[in-house]
Amino acid sequence: MVSSEWEAKAEHCRTILQDSLNPAWLLAQEDLPSADELNVSSFIDTCALLSPREHKITNSDGADLVIKMAAGSLTAVETVTAFLKRAHIAHQLTNFATEFMVSDALKAAADLDAYYKSTGKIKGALHGLPISTKEHIGHQGRICHSAYVAWADNIATEDALIVQIAKEAGAVFHVRTNEPQSVMHLDCSNYIYGTTVNPHNRRLTCGGSSGGEGVSLGLRCAVLGLGTDLGGSVRVPAAFCGSYGLRTTALRNPYKGICIPGAGQESIRCVVSPLANSVADLDLFQRAIIESEPWETETSLVPLQWRSVQPYSPQDLTVGVIWDDGVVHPHPPVTRALKQAVNKLKEAGIKVVDFDPFNHQEGWAIISTLYFPDGARAQKDLLDLSGEPVAELTTWILDKARPEPLTVTENWELNSRRDAYRDAYHQLMRQRGVDFLLTPAYIGCASELGTAQYIQYTSIWNMVDWPCITFPTGLKVDPKIDSIESNYQPRSAEDEREYKKYAPEIFTDAPIALQVVGKHFRDEETIAATALISKIVQKSG
Amino acid sequence: MVSSEWEAKAEHCRTILQDSLNPAWLLAQEDLPSADELNVSSFIDTCALLSPREHKITNSDGADLVIKMAAGSLTAVETVTAFLKRAHIAHQLTNFATEFMVSDALKAAADLDAYYKSTGKIKGALHGLPISTKEHIGHQGRICHSAYVAWADNIATEDALIVQIAKEAGAVFHVRTNEPQSVMHLDCSNYIYGTTVNPHNRRLTCGGSSGGEGVSLGLRCAVLGLGTDLGGSVRVPAAFCGSYGLRTTALRNPYKGICIPGAGQESIRCVVSPLANSVADLDLFQRAIIESEPWETETSLVPLQWRSVQPYSPQDLTVGVIWDDGVVHPHPPVTRALKQAVNKLKEAGIKVVDFDPFNHQEGWAIISTLYFPDGARAQKDLLDLSGEPVAELTTWILDKARPEPLTVTENWELNSRRDAYRDAYHQLMRQRGVDFLLTPAYIGCASELGTAQYIQYTSIWNMVDWPCITFPTGLKVDPKIDSIESNYQPRSAEDEREYKKYAPEIFTDAPIALQVVGKHFRDEETIAATALISKIVQKSG
Repeated sequence: MVSSEWEAKAEHCRTILQDSLNPAWLLAQEDLPSADELNVSSFIDTCALLSPREHKITNSDGADLVIKMAAGSLTAVETVTAFLKRAHIAHQLTNFATEFMVSDALKAAADLDAYYKSTGKIKGALHGLPISTKEHIGHQGRICHSAYVAWADNIATEDALIVQIAKEAGAVFHVRTNEPQSVMHLDCSNYIYGTTVNPHNRRLTCGGSSGGEGVSLGLRCAVLGLGTDLGGSVRVPAAFCGSYGLRTTALRNPYKGICIPGAGQESIRCVVSPLANSVADLDLFQRAIIESEPWETETSLVPLQWRSVQPYSPQDLTVGVIWDDGVVHPHPPVTRALKQAVNKLKEAGIKVVDFDPFNHQEGWAIISTLYFPDGARAQKDLLDLSGEPVAELTTWILDKARPEPLTVTENWELNSRRDAYRDAYHQLMRQRGVDFLLTPAYIGCASELGTAQYIQYTSIWNMVDWPCITFPTGLKVDPKIDSIESNYQPRSAEDEREYKKYAPEIFTDAPIALQVVGKHFRDEETIAATALISKIVQKSG
Repeated sequence: MVSSEWEAKAEHCRTILQDSLNPAWLLAQEDLPSADELNVSSFIDTCALLSPREHKITNSDGADLVIKMAAGSLTAVETVTAFLKRAHIAHQLTNFATEFMVSDALKAAADLDAYYKSTGKIKGALHGLPISTKEHIGHQGRICHSAYVAWADNIATEDALIVQIAKEAGAVFHVRTNEPQSVMHLDCSNYIYGTTVNPHNRRLTCGGSSGGEGVSLGLRCAVLGLGTDLGGSVRVPAAFCGSYGLRTTALRNPYKGICIPGAGQESIRCVVSPLANSVADLDLFQRAIIESEPWETETSLVPLQWRSVQPYSPQDLTVGVIWDDGVVHPHPPVTRALKQAVNKLKEAGIKVVDFDPFNHQEGWAIISTLYFPDGARAQKDLLDLSGEPVAELTTWILDKARPEPLTVTENWELNSRRDAYRDAYHQLMRQRGVDFLLTPAYIGCASELGTAQYIQYTSIWNMVDWPCITFPTGLKVDPKIDSIESNYQPRSAEDEREYKKYAPEIFTDAPIALQVVGKHFRDEETIAATALISKIVQKSG
């Protein structure tokens, strides 16, 4: 494709985005913060475009909103409108959206209100809740390109299965969000929509690959967001933007209708999972999806009902702490937050033990090869097809692939090595009597734009296929406290590269997140543990 | 390897087998049936080597034996001894064993008796039950070669996980059994131990690949048998020899410790599953295995508890009947049995509907390619390594492989096609309101030695990964009734090839089996349905 061709295709997508905006909900340029105002995280809360009631709506949790709609004290149209307005301003602040679905969303909301009016009942557990979706999650009749210009003509023939199920439970889909080229960066920039920035500090990335979802939840533009996670792509943007990001065990949530190269690759499975602004909303969403028995449609899913787990008390848990993965040392704010968290958890009566990680370098060797068993041909061919430029971070991650495709036999050997690693890590947890791990979500707190490279604090849990949740500690980077660890001696070139990325003033106001990790298929327990742990960690004082 | 080398290795294995026999339990040649006595299925029951009490023991179901051992009216040593004696004679009749484990088994039984004596309790749900195992299921310290001479030096470093768990539940492993070269024939012959024959008609095969297990259960040499099933390898020998063969949904039973080329191949998973002489014993075994929570060790297993399903009443079920898979027409005795079964089920009040199969040829196209994504290199290299002769049936099945290995990308495309086929078949079941299928277990009733080629009546359910059970109808081939369907016009060369294999007098006395098929992960329901269906079908009159 010649340059003008791919640019025309990208331009077409941008036009769709532009046309999808409701001009009435956009602020004039002069009413927006200036470009040098980096922290715009509370701008919308002071913005008169939203009524006080709309501010209240958008600052509520999903569970509360559903209760109000079930009681008739709130309509779906009001709810969806409030979030749509917020999302418009958020887009002006961060460039997070790829397409608004205003009329579809308002129509769906009006239908829900009519349903409620005629039956006196809500439609389902997600009644009237606005949900944003990462661009490569299909919506019927809309373009689904996975940030590849080559696919800018691809129209989804039906909603992704998880979207269908959520709609059936009453959810409303109102905005689609940005993702990086290759959908494999912890960053959010592509040649179609450009770069999405972090609302807490616009010099930083919102994370990725579900970066637009990070902003969407970080600025409360949706009650829930749907991203995909193959190496941290839900958890990292949630962490960078101050919300909660779940990665379920594979084969629980339906995956049909995700547009991504390499379909049929099963050695490391990508999962669709939610972001939210509370642990309760993650549970609300998961229950709604799993109770629909999605395995009756997507039969490769595991028919495990969503179990009700009693809330944990501190004495129920033993938490292992990974301070450092033994490969790359976390930045000072992360260690500060982890120390503070550990102290609080201990004070609360939780048994907390240091946990020596199990050879994360071996885990990385396996997963990084299994990400691209085809030598990343699926990705490279698509990039070649359009001729769009290849971003540095794309090259960086695709270079993890072996130069030549694996043979199926080599792939099998890695599958066996993967299973052995998984089994061994699980045994370690059992031997040490540890139920959950508390770990960094990333080496630092967001990254400067275009620089996020080290994904192993999240990808290691994709490797073992364990459920995990990143959650906000309530702390932010404070240059006055989080000075450089000047006496640290990096143990490798990679460690040094990441160490040098930290300078306190760059990361001002970036939210500091941590990660709770549970055992394989213990998604419900991991959510329950995070509910307790995050509450204790966020408690002031 | 020069000929003398592989022959020496094979001879070494035969010596181990010979040395493992207890001469006191072998009959003199003159006391055995003559070679031209084809049906030896009731020979042991009239044989004085077993005491009347031993006859009674070996004719009991597992559940009854455990009750007696729990009540102290039977010892494990008595039980194991009785089955060992029976197995010795059976081996003389059919050549089904690869190794007896007499002293280990008697020691284990004595330990169980001591345990019972000191505690007054049985060790577990399988207390004292003798279980035979297909050769390639590992036993610590013993050769495990998977019928490849090249692996005749391979010593298992530990018991297969399913063996470990069964031992923990009190099971006793007493004899290992024969399998065909490549472990991919519905027949049972290799260059180490030679050919295992069908006890009901020694001109016929016992089936395969878990052929020795077919004999073991068919002649009641064990209460339970463990085989592996990738295309029918548990179900077919059970069907040919007159016992019950289960194929569970994949990722329920532990698979660690099975010696087979191509480890790490996950597109079509081989499963370890039991054979038994009653449906209740299949359930007994499955419950014991799953209740041990094997996923805590083999973490790729799905953590689904074994559910208690209430026994079905006739009005609970809708059964779809596949009379013919649309590719190869079943032989007359199979159709006779199926007709009789359908009549009885209808009379009993079960809703029975004809079920038009869903493009089984497409299913075969997918699974036959996915059996050997590496171009069957894993198998061919092992055969080349030893230089042992390659059997016709080995060539026949390995020729299903594409000549060149698939690329990983081609493998992915087939995975996607497989999932689409699975989902579509499941939807068809739902649309038609059918809970279970009743189908032939094979085109006919056993096969002449070395001739079983058509595996699709069983392999199609591996393709969709549904649980299924072959069960005896109680009928046998009767040349007086089961005449050739002289007016049948074969629809293809393949159909004609199989049609021509039938001649009534050849198959005299072969047991006629059928197959019950349930939905993905509905293993418990499939067992419950088979309990009802087989009881109705077997009722005389």
